[in-house]
Amino acid sequence: MTTTMLRTPIQHCKQCGTKVVYRLPDDGDTKERAVCPACNTVHYENPLNVVGTVPYFGDKILLCKRNIEPRFGKWTLPAGFMELDETTAEGAARETVEEAGAEFEMLGLFTLLNVARVGQVHLFYRARLLSDQFNPGTETIEARLFAEDEIPWDEIAFRTVKETLERYFADRRSGVFSIHCVDIV
Amino acid sequence: MTTTMLRTPIQHCKQCGTKVVYRLPDDGDTKERAVCPACNTVHYENPLNVVGTVPYFGDKILLCKRNIEPRFGKWTLPAGFMELDETTAEGAARETVEEAGAEFEMLGLFTLLNVARVGQVHLFYRARLLSDQFNPGTETIEARLFAEDEIPWDEIAFRTVKETLERYFADRRSGVFSIHCVDIV
Repeated sequence: MTTTMLRTPIQHCKQCGTKVVYRLPDDGDTKERAVCPACNTVHYENPLNVVGTVPYFGDKILLCKRNIEPRFGKWTLPAGFMELDETTAEGAARETVEEAGAEFEMLGLFTLLNVARVGQVHLFYRARLLSDQFNPGTETIEARLFAEDEIPWDEIAFRTVKETLERYFADRRSGVFSIHCVDIV
Repeated sequence: MTTTMLRTPIQHCKQCGTKVVYRLPDDGDTKERAVCPACNTVHYENPLNVVGTVPYFGDKILLCKRNIEPRFGKWTLPAGFMELDETTAEGAARETVEEAGAEFEMLGLFTLLNVARVGQVHLFYRARLLSDQFNPGTETIEARLFAEDEIPWDEIAFRTVKETLERYFADRRSGVFSIHCVDIV
């Protein structure tokens, strides 16, 4: 995950800079929004997608030790905020290059996890590593392969990563990978 | 879809109202962002999720005739922008109530469609209608059930809706509903 994106309330209009007011817009909307009293711009805030991969090499999984907050020093799957002008899979691949410097083939969607409490949807794709050599970027202290019995379960950075890893190993045992939809409450 | 959300470039800082500049942030980010020269706030713009349902009653599908722009008068599946404080499925259910006034049971995720050109991800869930009576909201001219051979294919409002309907009928014929990931280019 590349960026801590704190949701601080919108204070000023992004179009004209006037101080906004929070009220119901005039279009029948039923939620209060930051509305500009000068130019009438309505500011929407919506959930963010976090996209990443489960990169595997044989029976091992690639994890990255975080060199950034939050969860500095904890282990994660490569993932980060989806950007404009990319698909979910393209964003997941980009993050895997940025955070692990891995070479891989993208496979199918594996988990979709809702984290409504923080306004996020996390999507992980399976990715088949083509090499066990990695060239991690500055956001990663170390990129390393782990067999299932080596996974540092108590040192996993995010709940969505833990849930994804658990389902990956369960599906691998069953011999069939399906798509898992999970709500993190 | 409830809202036309045009992406106009951010002009002013949402925290302090100062005119922003577009540049690379100082944290190693590789994309230009709207950065405030006064308070250093970095403004991110990310893709939006649109969430909706494929509501079915027996062999018929519920479509809504749009009473709003864009695509006024065209037919759509109930869908709209996902809000904070809800999951993808909760948002899809909310939109189905708002746009169709339908009673239904939510089933599984059915399609995930990337529309990178407009920075959107569309997610549709199957929903089993409990009644063929509807009470559509102000965004809908008419909510109506269609058999497959009655679908107004040339009057469907959005490409993601058309792709979802096509896959729904194909899966129904095969007897197995799976999750479909589609890139709309």
